[in-house]
Amino acid sequence: MADRQDNTSGEDSLIARYFRPLASDPGAFDLDDDAAALKPSGDDVVVTTDAIVEGVHFLPDDPPDTIARKALRVNLSDLAAKGAVPAGFVLTLALRNADDAWLKPFAAALGEDARQFGCPLLGGDTVSTPGPLMISITAFGRVPANRMVHRNGAKPGERVVVTGTIGDAALGLAVLNGGKVHAALDDAAARDLLIDRYRVPQPRTALAEIVREYASAAMDVSDGLAGDLTKLCGVSGISAVIDLDSIPLSDVARDLVSRGVVGIETLIAGGDDYEILCTVADDRVEAFAQAAKSAGVALSSIGTVVAGSTVPKFFDGQGSEIVLKRRSYSHF
Amino acid sequence: MADRQDNTSGEDSLIARYFRPLASDPGAFDLDDDAAALKPSGDDVVVTTDAIVEGVHFLPDDPPDTIARKALRVNLSDLAAKGAVPAGFVLTLALRNADDAWLKPFAAALGEDARQFGCPLLGGDTVSTPGPLMISITAFGRVPANRMVHRNGAKPGERVVVTGTIGDAALGLAVLNGGKVHAALDDAAARDLLIDRYRVPQPRTALAEIVREYASAAMDVSDGLAGDLTKLCGVSGISAVIDLDSIPLSDVARDLVSRGVVGIETLIAGGDDYEILCTVADDRVEAFAQAAKSAGVALSSIGTVVAGSTVPKFFDGQGSEIVLKRRSYSHF
Repeated sequence: MADRQDNTSGEDSLIARYFRPLASDPGAFDLDDDAAALKPSGDDVVVTTDAIVEGVHFLPDDPPDTIARKALRVNLSDLAAKGAVPAGFVLTLALRNADDAWLKPFAAALGEDARQFGCPLLGGDTVSTPGPLMISITAFGRVPANRMVHRNGAKPGERVVVTGTIGDAALGLAVLNGGKVHAALDDAAARDLLIDRYRVPQPRTALAEIVREYASAAMDVSDGLAGDLTKLCGVSGISAVIDLDSIPLSDVARDLVSRGVVGIETLIAGGDDYEILCTVADDRVEAFAQAAKSAGVALSSIGTVVAGSTVPKFFDGQGSEIVLKRRSYSHF
Repeated sequence: MADRQDNTSGEDSLIARYFRPLASDPGAFDLDDDAAALKPSGDDVVVTTDAIVEGVHFLPDDPPDTIARKALRVNLSDLAAKGAVPAGFVLTLALRNADDAWLKPFAAALGEDARQFGCPLLGGDTVSTPGPLMISITAFGRVPANRMVHRNGAKPGERVVVTGTIGDAALGLAVLNGGKVHAALDDAAARDLLIDRYRVPQPRTALAEIVREYASAAMDVSDGLAGDLTKLCGVSGISAVIDLDSIPLSDVARDLVSRGVVGIETLIAGGDDYEILCTVADDRVEAFAQAAKSAGVALSSIGTVVAGSTVPKFFDGQGSEIVLKRRSYSHF
């Protein structure tokens, strides 16, 4: 942030006005320096970075406050899945222009989320771009030494577990894009619920320590449950068998599936869920679910880890395998 | 990096082919996870983030290897100015498409620099963008507890010191843009020297510990010496008096100034020097310069810190104050 400021420039006043109030951590040095400092705590520092691009991860018409929340929360979601407690973040903001009407609600919402999730702004960089708006955040979390939860710890016989509900964000994007999902929903409240899931993910920060305690492998679901599970299986060197009927759906999503508006494939190959997908020893699932419930998060057991190197298989209620044409979102 | 990959996607094979070989640090987990881990060392972790945008910080025709080096080195320059020894970095790459002919030399050069400067790739995110190419890097360094060198420690009576030479990168950009600087240089080697200074900064990593030992305040010169000094003075609550004739220039730059092709103002208000600007107690300047020389870096003493809150003043060889119309680059 400080690095490209100028005492007399619009850039500097932009930082002073909107972002300095967010830099409450002493290691942020009031954004008056070229760098921030993270104090050693004996913990490992978990580092994750995720960028969101206008027209790719959010829509040009999305409100600035929801863009800010999404930019931070997609990173908080990664930290939670790794069992890490948030410690702070740095922000790179590429803007076409410094528009107060956009920056004010953006910074206010970013500040609210930073406080809510205990993840203060530590620094950043503000650059001009002739292209789409882009927000890149690198977030830091802490875990006790060597306790980061990896993708590669799943073992045959364990259960595959997921938080919350799956597919709502993909449906929210479909609503915003118009078309059949929008047409099928008369209820404005239902539409808003889905749109909200797309625009403002709910990172499972409350579950970080619990995931660390129970999960053998974990990742957040950002590019679609099917594809992300495929990645987890690949890295763990195992496969999985998933019961499609067990995948948790919201009432709205379930209604759309039952009316044939969308297939389950749309929901599990869509992106932006930001739920936690993990694997847990069979005899610990119950305790895991209880602990999660105490933290206010629903857990669903959706399948079983099996030996093998094939992609995970998905079975419907009749025991028939459903072969997916598409598993996830890919940028290239 | 891992976060948006797909086992079957172009994105995944892009990461596996080009970036996994760079992830030599055990905390990078072979880019197979959602996050990296920095082990505690008892040191403070210094965090800096700097993005470069096509058409803003580099030119669309710049070779991919120089773009990679610039993206990393602008961050290494910040670490050096803060007295921090590099520990690793995360990369966000926003690409229009996954072009092997571009990615291969980009990743190869990034890997070479990562090795040369001891700053391994720890993770990242690769996203598609319809707009200009953008590379955002967050880099980490280590300093003993509370030993990061700040911008705000300058005291009246100290000397203002700068490394290397100033203004070559601004001249390099002027050469690339054609016009009078290009026309004034018959010598291709001189042009190439300036272009190289613009495209490939030389971070003063070798000076990190020495800066920590001697400097009371420091920052890297990225947006122009005059403007950056103005920022350092502002944050330190002091002013400075600078002798323009003492500002170190390369032979090419000095020749262009003596021939009246450019004024000194162009050189000290231009950007992209990536030298270290710092303040040092008067009786320690000699030892500082000797230590820097042993590390292969030239130091020049260019002025004096004075009490006051005015912007720094610049005097020519006749003792006349030169009032600058422009002090630095600003994005907005």
